[in-house]
Amino acid sequence: MTIELVNTGSELLLGRVLNTHQQWICRQLADSGRSVARQVAVPDGGQDIQQAVRESLGRADLVITTGGLGPTCDDVTRELIAQLLGRRLLRDEAVRGHIGRFFASRGRPVPVRTDVESWVPEGATILMNTYGTAPGLVLEVSPNPFRADARPSVLVMLPGPPRELRPMFTELVLPLVHRRFPLEEAFVCRTLKTTGIGESNMEERISGPLKPFTDAGMDLGFCARVGEVDVRFVARGADAVATVAAAEAVARALVGESIFGEQDDTLATVLVRELTARGLTLALAESCTGGHIADRITDVPGASAVLLAGHVTYSDAAKISALGVRAETLAAHGAVSEEVAREMAEGARCAAGADLALAVTGIAGPGGGSDAKPVGTVFIALATEAGTEVQLHLNRFDRPTFKYLTSQQAMMAALRASRASGAA
Amino acid sequence: MTIELVNTGSELLLGRVLNTHQQWICRQLADSGRSVARQVAVPDGGQDIQQAVRESLGRADLVITTGGLGPTCDDVTRELIAQLLGRRLLRDEAVRGHIGRFFASRGRPVPVRTDVESWVPEGATILMNTYGTAPGLVLEVSPNPFRADARPSVLVMLPGPPRELRPMFTELVLPLVHRRFPLEEAFVCRTLKTTGIGESNMEERISGPLKPFTDAGMDLGFCARVGEVDVRFVARGADAVATVAAAEAVARALVGESIFGEQDDTLATVLVRELTARGLTLALAESCTGGHIADRITDVPGASAVLLAGHVTYSDAAKISALGVRAETLAAHGAVSEEVAREMAEGARCAAGADLALAVTGIAGPGGGSDAKPVGTVFIALATEAGTEVQLHLNRFDRPTFKYLTSQQAMMAALRASRASGAA
Repeated sequence: MTIELVNTGSELLLGRVLNTHQQWICRQLADSGRSVARQVAVPDGGQDIQQAVRESLGRADLVITTGGLGPTCDDVTRELIAQLLGRRLLRDEAVRGHIGRFFASRGRPVPVRTDVESWVPEGATILMNTYGTAPGLVLEVSPNPFRADARPSVLVMLPGPPRELRPMFTELVLPLVHRRFPLEEAFVCRTLKTTGIGESNMEERISGPLKPFTDAGMDLGFCARVGEVDVRFVARGADAVATVAAAEAVARALVGESIFGEQDDTLATVLVRELTARGLTLALAESCTGGHIADRITDVPGASAVLLAGHVTYSDAAKISALGVRAETLAAHGAVSEEVAREMAEGARCAAGADLALAVTGIAGPGGGSDAKPVGTVFIALATEAGTEVQLHLNRFDRPTFKYLTSQQAMMAALRASRASGAA
Repeated sequence: MTIELVNTGSELLLGRVLNTHQQWICRQLADSGRSVARQVAVPDGGQDIQQAVRESLGRADLVITTGGLGPTCDDVTRELIAQLLGRRLLRDEAVRGHIGRFFASRGRPVPVRTDVESWVPEGATILMNTYGTAPGLVLEVSPNPFRADARPSVLVMLPGPPRELRPMFTELVLPLVHRRFPLEEAFVCRTLKTTGIGESNMEERISGPLKPFTDAGMDLGFCARVGEVDVRFVARGADAVATVAAAEAVARALVGESIFGEQDDTLATVLVRELTARGLTLALAESCTGGHIADRITDVPGASAVLLAGHVTYSDAAKISALGVRAETLAAHGAVSEEVAREMAEGARCAAGADLALAVTGIAGPGGGSDAKPVGTVFIALATEAGTEVQLHLNRFDRPTFKYLTSQQAMMAALRASRASGAA
């Protein structure tokens, strides 16, 4: 089956908003065994939207549009598509009732302009909007006047706001896709999330041993981002589940120490989950990462049970007063040194009474480097009951990338220590 | 003139990466007075790329492609477009020399597979890649076989990595666009960055007073993101500069206290710049924002001259030990209270010896709320030599949004205090 995606909205073409729908919808479909053949973005204008939808209906079995279903004057997708397909707009009382209840439950009057949202193209199936008012719409285009062979297409129109579109897609559109376009065979897509091994290195280490699987038809994919490589196994057919499980076992045996999670896990989420499960607490002492590790960890709901305290100690004075780093250590080795990293971690652990403490000190740049300690040099210390270990990395990137990569290395060190600890 | 954008890459259609090129390139062009009529993403496959480029060349004066110029087996854009246009690939010695020097300066041998990058379509203009190896390419398609009237088009091919594409676009492509497609009249686009006023409210306050300008043809645009509204003035013609300057003065008189910067300024960048210029230092005490303010500030190069210390004090114990908050205050008012916010800010200011200190304490959620202090409640304190002021906000959002919005409110308070201070 062929799928195309049409994103409508002048703000997309003016570069005022980022098109997150493309990635999100494509990812949902890919993970369910179907891929999008083409994505198009067009402005909110009659000719552009109609032309793009006409072209997509001429090529694809399923066409998904986003945006333009709301109540304002630039929300024109519903009308334009009805016109393109020669359908009248009819009032839908169920939608009207939903809109009325939506505002009533919020104690607000129904805005007059939302009335337009209850007029839907003749023959449309309604996808009710739990998180907003404008419904999604499904149209069977059959016979399809835009295909030479008149083969039918399904047209799905979704509202633009992500918090409305996403649950609607997951709860209503994906089941519809499964129903209307069943896969000919079972499909399994599984992702292992790794950090600490580069993409080429990862490929070198596992693609040989996994060759029996790929030779037999399993797809092995790699996706690299800063400080992370996703390893993806995709299999089809009756043995898909068993194939992927066996391949995963091979990969875990080879690079297990770099695997932090699965599917959509983030390292911060996994770390908070692991520490919580083991009843362990954490303290942070950050110089060059400037609070980035604390920020990532506290993005996770429930982080307060784990993170006792964090310190952002850019200055020597703060390292001394907040963490008890000794002035002599700073004088003898400099702020960016194994010795200072060690004292920062031990000081933070002691001050907070935490089980684990992470400390980072380094040179984020662009200034501050030297021949002995170039920009990108960073010491990461992890203090535990068992002692303190210090890693040295050279992360030579722009500041935000440096901070992110360093936070990955630090959190992975804490995750390994947590997993290795006796507690459970 | 008509512009279309073709993003190539199977990873886009599989939803593995976010297409940031679309927003970034569209924004650059819009800010220079030109808009993109259509954007298409297609996978790395022969037919898809050639079909999309053929269609775009049939409609547009300028077609920009991204991706597929690198050395790996799925980098096929250069070859496919050369084939589509019937051009041979010729070795370019200047590119070959650049690639050699690129690796030599990094002390690495030239990888064999980069050789393909020095083969360019006959007649192409080279856009040398300062931050990588694969050059951008410009092809004059004249006469244009894909347009009914054979009108010429310009085809620009750019490499995929953003840190290579962006400087290449700014330094080489934009000047080319200005040269080849000069605007018929002067064009000015100016953005004021604001925080603290919602989009509807902003529109209500300034669109009436600016009516004489919009009636005379100036565009007034609003773009809302979390905690920020951009106000955009766009004018064309001989008086464009004067028109936008006069409109900006009107807006500044009405909502000046909410304006933190211009064009692509971020609040963190402006705050670091202002504090540096005035020789002021800052300390931070963060509870519910968990280091997010420190993280944003330390993303700015030079932040170390300004930020003396930050504390992430989730627990009561950390508030007491790191900031000197009194146990009685915590017991009497609770951790989320005006009194605790005040003591946190004053404690952080005193401990670091800073000119200004910001403190935040609140309930990020999803748990922890009560009737008296619902999820989203946050106290923001700013301590200066002149005393301490505390703001109360209700930021009822998901955690990352809560943290971002609170960081905007806190940094804006510090920016206002810095601007109001006698120092300069």
